[in-house]
Amino acid sequence: MTDAVRPAWIAVDWGTSNLRAWAMAANGRVLAEASSEDGMGKLDRDGFEPALLRLIGAWLSGSPPVVACGMVGSRQGWCEAPYRTVPCPPLDLSAQVSAPAADPRLRVLIAPGLKQAQPADVMRGEETQIAGALRLMGDYDGILCLPGTHSKWVHISAGEVVSFQTYMTGEMFALLSEASVLRHGMQGAAGWDDAAFDAAVLDALSRPERLAARLFSLRAEGLIAGLAPGSARARLSGLLIGTELAAARPYWLGQKVTLIGAEKLSAAYARALAAQGVDAMRLSATDCTLAGLAALSPQTEAAG
Amino acid sequence: MTDAVRPAWIAVDWGTSNLRAWAMAANGRVLAEASSEDGMGKLDRDGFEPALLRLIGAWLSGSPPVVACGMVGSRQGWCEAPYRTVPCPPLDLSAQVSAPAADPRLRVLIAPGLKQAQPADVMRGEETQIAGALRLMGDYDGILCLPGTHSKWVHISAGEVVSFQTYMTGEMFALLSEASVLRHGMQGAAGWDDAAFDAAVLDALSRPERLAARLFSLRAEGLIAGLAPGSARARLSGLLIGTELAAARPYWLGQKVTLIGAEKLSAAYARALAAQGVDAMRLSATDCTLAGLAALSPQTEAAG
Repeated sequence: MTDAVRPAWIAVDWGTSNLRAWAMAANGRVLAEASSEDGMGKLDRDGFEPALLRLIGAWLSGSPPVVACGMVGSRQGWCEAPYRTVPCPPLDLSAQVSAPAADPRLRVLIAPGLKQAQPADVMRGEETQIAGALRLMGDYDGILCLPGTHSKWVHISAGEVVSFQTYMTGEMFALLSEASVLRHGMQGAAGWDDAAFDAAVLDALSRPERLAARLFSLRAEGLIAGLAPGSARARLSGLLIGTELAAARPYWLGQKVTLIGAEKLSAAYARALAAQGVDAMRLSATDCTLAGLAALSPQTEAAG
Repeated sequence: MTDAVRPAWIAVDWGTSNLRAWAMAANGRVLAEASSEDGMGKLDRDGFEPALLRLIGAWLSGSPPVVACGMVGSRQGWCEAPYRTVPCPPLDLSAQVSAPAADPRLRVLIAPGLKQAQPADVMRGEETQIAGALRLMGDYDGILCLPGTHSKWVHISAGEVVSFQTYMTGEMFALLSEASVLRHGMQGAAGWDDAAFDAAVLDALSRPERLAARLFSLRAEGLIAGLAPGSARARLSGLLIGTELAAARPYWLGQKVTLIGAEKLSAAYARALAAQGVDAMRLSATDCTLAGLAALSPQTEAAG
């Protein structure tokens, strides 16, 4: 038998596809963690509380506060936490929304996302990672890049999100590599090909308008020139990241850049940026999420 | 009771998703037509003959020749018809491949596709439409554009395909509008918005490198600015077609252009090209397919 977990508070990152939770000590240490595939996209409004109880029910004996971010606060989520408008600090304690819960042990606060009027853009979840990054780095003026399904480039100044821009790079990679005709040339791609990635990034940066043509050539080279699946996959990644970098050039050219993301994906972005002379710092996405949620928790508020 | 159909030959267009057949008179008149969803992608090698017999069995009493084009001739098809290499005429009677058939009434010839070594590219099915277009128009030097799932731009000179370039525009539109996060803002899109289409084409042509950012703004404007589903759909189409036109500029700038495709899609391309000062001619894809297959049929060979 393990001892019961008695957290001071519980951190929850609830996205479209996944639900992740951490039992936290008041000093910021992680006592336990758990995850499930009960993402927002699979639940209707009545499904949120049971999904959360399944995951963290064993941690609730002390009725610790639960601090959540992500799509759980969208209009289709548990309880809408209306977007705040940039420019503004990434988080605001007073803007959190209490989710309705039947279980008396549950006290759930949801962080709102951010919106930008022009050019229109939105984020949910990343604002918490941004707040965490600013806590972890102390004062930071510069650019944050959060690669992922919907990559974000964010301009930070004086503790505020000044502007941001979202790219569908990760979702395009998933659709093209798994659901398009290109999947035939990428099946069983165990390896990775750094040279193919590097060349594709440069190619996309110098001629970004050719993306739509470059994509089909991956299929054609597989059919008539024996392009290896691992090379095809690395080249697709390079083409898409390079195209994103071409469009995001005003964000990174001559700027201080910090990457917040999963390790392998951040490494790919760092490599592509290094080839352009940008030496990006890197932070773990999970570390940033926990630091951001800690800033929102009533139990660690003083530490923020 | 209708009279039995006794064609001189049978035309077959057999793609990844669909199988279409026409019972043809020697003079080129269509006596009957039929189609099914027995596309190449759903069949294994043993499934082709039964699928064809289900569709055209009633037309076979005179054992007319069957002339086919499309993915049926790919390596995963009924019988591989190896690619011919450009520059070359779009079709070659002597390069057709006989498909093995158990039914003694079946005599099936499959047209090979075309490949280009550098930049690597391939086509299967379009070569027959190209041959048909050249027959319908007589001498034609200039550019053919075949919009579709995988749009092709083709340079024709002296009856030969000199070079070509494929764009995944149609497949990207299908994936993004039906399988990505953008689908949420396009559901129930009954209307179309010409102004949104036109503006998106111009936007993509002038800043093609921004495509990846423009895409997510469709979602964001749906969430925070009430973008209508019909406008979002038209803008997605305009962004993708405009990006294709930006990359294909060397093909159409100052050139004679003829569009071969489905009516609505060709109209969208014609509208986008007209805004760039290119007055494109238009041919029906089906007319071109039938004219191309007729050139391959032993029963109409003299007419070719």
